[in-house]
Amino acid sequence: MSYFKNFLNANNAYVDLHGTGHLPLKPKTKVAIVTFVYCDLYGLLFRSLGDAHILRNAGGRVTEDMIRSLVISEQQMGTREIVVLHHTDCGAQTFKNDEFTAYLNKELGVDVSDKDFLPFTDVEESVREDMAILRQSPLIPEDVVISGAVYDVDTGRMTQVNP
Amino acid sequence: MSYFKNFLNANNAYVDLHGTGHLPLKPKTKVAIVTFVYCDLYGLLFRSLGDAHILRNAGGRVTEDMIRSLVISEQQMGTREIVVLHHTDCGAQTFKNDEFTAYLNKELGVDVSDKDFLPFTDVEESVREDMAILRQSPLIPEDVVISGAVYDVDTGRMTQVNP
Repeated sequence: MSYFKNFLNANNAYVDLHGTGHLPLKPKTKVAIVTFVYCDLYGLLFRSLGDAHILRNAGGRVTEDMIRSLVISEQQMGTREIVVLHHTDCGAQTFKNDEFTAYLNKELGVDVSDKDFLPFTDVEESVREDMAILRQSPLIPEDVVISGAVYDVDTGRMTQVNP
Repeated sequence: MSYFKNFLNANNAYVDLHGTGHLPLKPKTKVAIVTFVYCDLYGLLFRSLGDAHILRNAGGRVTEDMIRSLVISEQQMGTREIVVLHHTDCGAQTFKNDEFTAYLNKELGVDVSDKDFLPFTDVEESVREDMAILRQSPLIPEDVVISGAVYDVDTGRMTQVNP
C-alpha cells in the first residue's frame, strides 16, 4: 500500500550509477531558490544551470522556516543570491484561510482558525510580498541579491517580477 | 553580478521544449517527500519515480511550515504518504545553535539566541524525531503512511529508518 518500497527499489539502480563521488555541500552558483512543490521542474528547469540550493514549501512562500534555511545556506554554505519563484495556477490560489481552516476543523477535528496557510490571489503580488520580507529581514545581509519571477505552467516561461 | 539573468536565459531554451502542456497540480504518486536542499538529487533520484511533492528546507526537518505545506498537499492535492529523507554529511551537522547564533550576532548584529536552527548530530535520530513529530500531529491523519530514510552522499544509497 506504500509507494516508499518502489522508492527504495529505484534507489538500487541509482546506487550503481552513483560511484564513489561525494557531492559538495556548497552549491557552485551561490544561488538559493525559494520555490514551490511542483514535481519535475527541477530536472527540466534547473539542472542545466549547475547546482543551487533549492528550498520548497507550499506556494514557495518566505516563512520563518524559509529564512532559517536561507541563513544556514548563506552563512554556512556561501550562497549570496536568492530567487523567489512562484507559479501560475498554484495550489495556494485554490483556497482561502477561513474556508480551509473550517474544512480542517470538520475533517480532522482540529481548531487551527488562527493559522495562516499563506494562500494568495495575485501571483506577482505574492512574489513582491516575499521579496519585501527578505529585503526587510535583519538576517539577510544587504549585499545578498534578491530576484523574483513567476513561472507560467502553460508555457514554461519565467517572467521577472520587479520589487 | 547576479546569476538570475543566466537563469532567465536558460529558461528560453526550456520554453521551446515545454509546448503547451499544463502540468497537473496533483502528483501521480500521492507522495510528499520532506527533504534537504541538496542540489541535483531530484533529477537523479526522483525523476524516474514519477512525480511527487517535494518539500525542502535546511536539513529536511519537520517544522511548523513543513506541516503547513503537508496539510495543503494532503487536503488540497490528495497526497497520502510522507517520506522523511535526511542525508549523511549534512550542513545541519556542521554547527551548534549557540555557536551559530553567537556568530550571527557578531556578523549581522542580530540577537537570535532564542532561535533553533535545527542542527543535529545523529542523522538516523533526526529522521526518527521528525517522523515522530508527524505521527503526533493532529493535522496529519492516522492513515497517512509515514516512512523515513537516510541518503548516503558517498554511495548514493538510501537506507530505511524505522520509527
